[in-house]
Amino acid sequence: MPPADPAPPGSTLGILGGGQLGRMLAMAAAELGIRTRIFAPPGDNPATDIAASAMIAEWNDEQALAEFADKVDAVTYEFENVPLETALFLAARKPLAPGANALAIAQDRVLEKSMARDLGLELAPFVEVGTIADLEAGIESIQLPAILKTRRLGYDGKGQVLIEKPTDAAAAWEAIGLIPAVLEERVAFEHEISALVARSADGAETVFDITMNHHENGILRHSRVPAGIDPILNQRAIDNAKRIARHLDYVGVLAVEMFVVGTDPTGLLLNEIAPRVHNSGHWTTDGCAFSQFDLHVRACLGWPLPPDPLRHSDVQMTNLLGDDAEAWRGFAKEPNVSLHLYGKASARPGRKMGHVNRVTPRAEPRR
Amino acid sequence: MPPADPAPPGSTLGILGGGQLGRMLAMAAAELGIRTRIFAPPGDNPATDIAASAMIAEWNDEQALAEFADKVDAVTYEFENVPLETALFLAARKPLAPGANALAIAQDRVLEKSMARDLGLELAPFVEVGTIADLEAGIESIQLPAILKTRRLGYDGKGQVLIEKPTDAAAAWEAIGLIPAVLEERVAFEHEISALVARSADGAETVFDITMNHHENGILRHSRVPAGIDPILNQRAIDNAKRIARHLDYVGVLAVEMFVVGTDPTGLLLNEIAPRVHNSGHWTTDGCAFSQFDLHVRACLGWPLPPDPLRHSDVQMTNLLGDDAEAWRGFAKEPNVSLHLYGKASARPGRKMGHVNRVTPRAEPRR
Repeated sequence: MPPADPAPPGSTLGILGGGQLGRMLAMAAAELGIRTRIFAPPGDNPATDIAASAMIAEWNDEQALAEFADKVDAVTYEFENVPLETALFLAARKPLAPGANALAIAQDRVLEKSMARDLGLELAPFVEVGTIADLEAGIESIQLPAILKTRRLGYDGKGQVLIEKPTDAAAAWEAIGLIPAVLEERVAFEHEISALVARSADGAETVFDITMNHHENGILRHSRVPAGIDPILNQRAIDNAKRIARHLDYVGVLAVEMFVVGTDPTGLLLNEIAPRVHNSGHWTTDGCAFSQFDLHVRACLGWPLPPDPLRHSDVQMTNLLGDDAEAWRGFAKEPNVSLHLYGKASARPGRKMGHVNRVTPRAEPRR
Repeated sequence: MPPADPAPPGSTLGILGGGQLGRMLAMAAAELGIRTRIFAPPGDNPATDIAASAMIAEWNDEQALAEFADKVDAVTYEFENVPLETALFLAARKPLAPGANALAIAQDRVLEKSMARDLGLELAPFVEVGTIADLEAGIESIQLPAILKTRRLGYDGKGQVLIEKPTDAAAAWEAIGLIPAVLEERVAFEHEISALVARSADGAETVFDITMNHHENGILRHSRVPAGIDPILNQRAIDNAKRIARHLDYVGVLAVEMFVVGTDPTGLLLNEIAPRVHNSGHWTTDGCAFSQFDLHVRACLGWPLPPDPLRHSDVQMTNLLGDDAEAWRGFAKEPNVSLHLYGKASARPGRKMGHVNRVTPRAEPRR
């Protein structure tokens, strides 16, 4: 929960995690006159260049966490793999948003999918896998091809193995490391879209336009607005995100990725949720008067939220992966491009080094 | 001059001055993967919350300046009252943009007006005043009412006295402190507008839409785009700014304030120039794909510039002065508002504490 009374300008927001999302949250906070303090383990933490201060320590360093908590007015996180114990330790000391419940759900694919099913959302058939026997049984009950995913700690396509035929089972189980997993039917989807909803402690909700995503090698490559999907599907995607947010009594920005299957407007399956700002919402900084980062900060501080924004432009967001960012001179010259570079030290292949938002006049009239 | 070879992402830009303009420059730099280092005298320096590092020392502390220069790849300034000696000291060590020549001109109303006159720009009649005798002679030659302004170090209407009748001379001379001054005819203007031009070392120029300004008590209160002025006047305002930028071999963003007098398109008089990003350009962060801060940083680092931006929205910028910013809860709830707060410690009356950009769909079609 965020502070009962809004934390005023001049307050300090603690951010767990020092990556590009933390960096962008720190910038959005700065625009609101809010100081930020990063907590992150040692490593390349580009958010610390922006934040007013930082505590570099391991997630289980309780002395460091207690000192961090002392110096902030509220806490949020930039990624969902912050250990739950860390979140709970901090939540006992300072207002934490989104809550530890959202973190727990997002860290566990079985909990996440079960919640969605209980809420009436549609999703691909799945089974929980704890042993090779579970996996073999799952392969019987689920239509192949299917994907075996680690139950916890997956991102950007990591910890996932494709199973095309029953005899792939043993190798797949080996490949993900013999750890708790979930087997799900591979969805033959037309598109992946995301919904971004910001929710405040008083239940106010602000929704950004639905985003169309394009992945390459399991990593988001482009997002664009408008998504150009059927209006019924569009509304359903928004409703799904709001339903999850309300169920979790969520505070902050929630991203919900969904698959569009076939052309039937009912063909919308949950992919996954992220209890944080999300790569597919990077267009918002250049498409609306306020961004996902801005609203996340406001909600986490207990501030009121504005109505849904009027998206002023069409935007195509392209991630700059690995050495893509070396072409910065070219992006700097391009018309109506907003260039974002994350200040990371090394450009490993596939690593998110920055993004560009290409901003064009709206092709369709405003609703 | 900026670096001969562009300073790549990961470089450090030194910023002289720690106020809100330095803060906004630091944020724009961060978006480009550029670190910033502030140099500012002790005081309330909100830019230091954002910059990766800061050197707090007096302008004439050569040891501190040398150490600062060692740790940056290029230097710029956020306000024009940086002592010229400081700028020259740094320019001898690291690339400085805009150049010290622009600073020298902007610091001296007589040099500034003489340059404009030499370039063929129109401006109100003025005389240099060094003594009370100069002032009395000036009052003979210039039509009253006139304004006596200190030759140096004026901003936001400070260091200015209105002279309505010849007998005001002695009191006015006293009021500005018996220091070198300039007497200028008070312009009965319809409007004040500003032109913002970014210029790179290779002579490329990027122009933002002309801004209409509204002052209260000598302080900018609102700016809006579109300015809604005659197209001929609009073009003339842009040409004036470019002419000054070219004459100074300028690098960075140059703001040129002009008065619109009468309804004749020739009625455009220079008010003053600012060799830096400018309050009247704050709308750009929410009206275009890139802002004045963004282009200033790029130019000062030797980066190429994009073509003139397509302004996507109409924007009304309102400065939050003194305790205006206490209404932050209300601004946070307002639709399509971008809220900017500067993180300053004390809200003295008239002090610029933040601004809001109200973003609305373009009322007129794009040119």
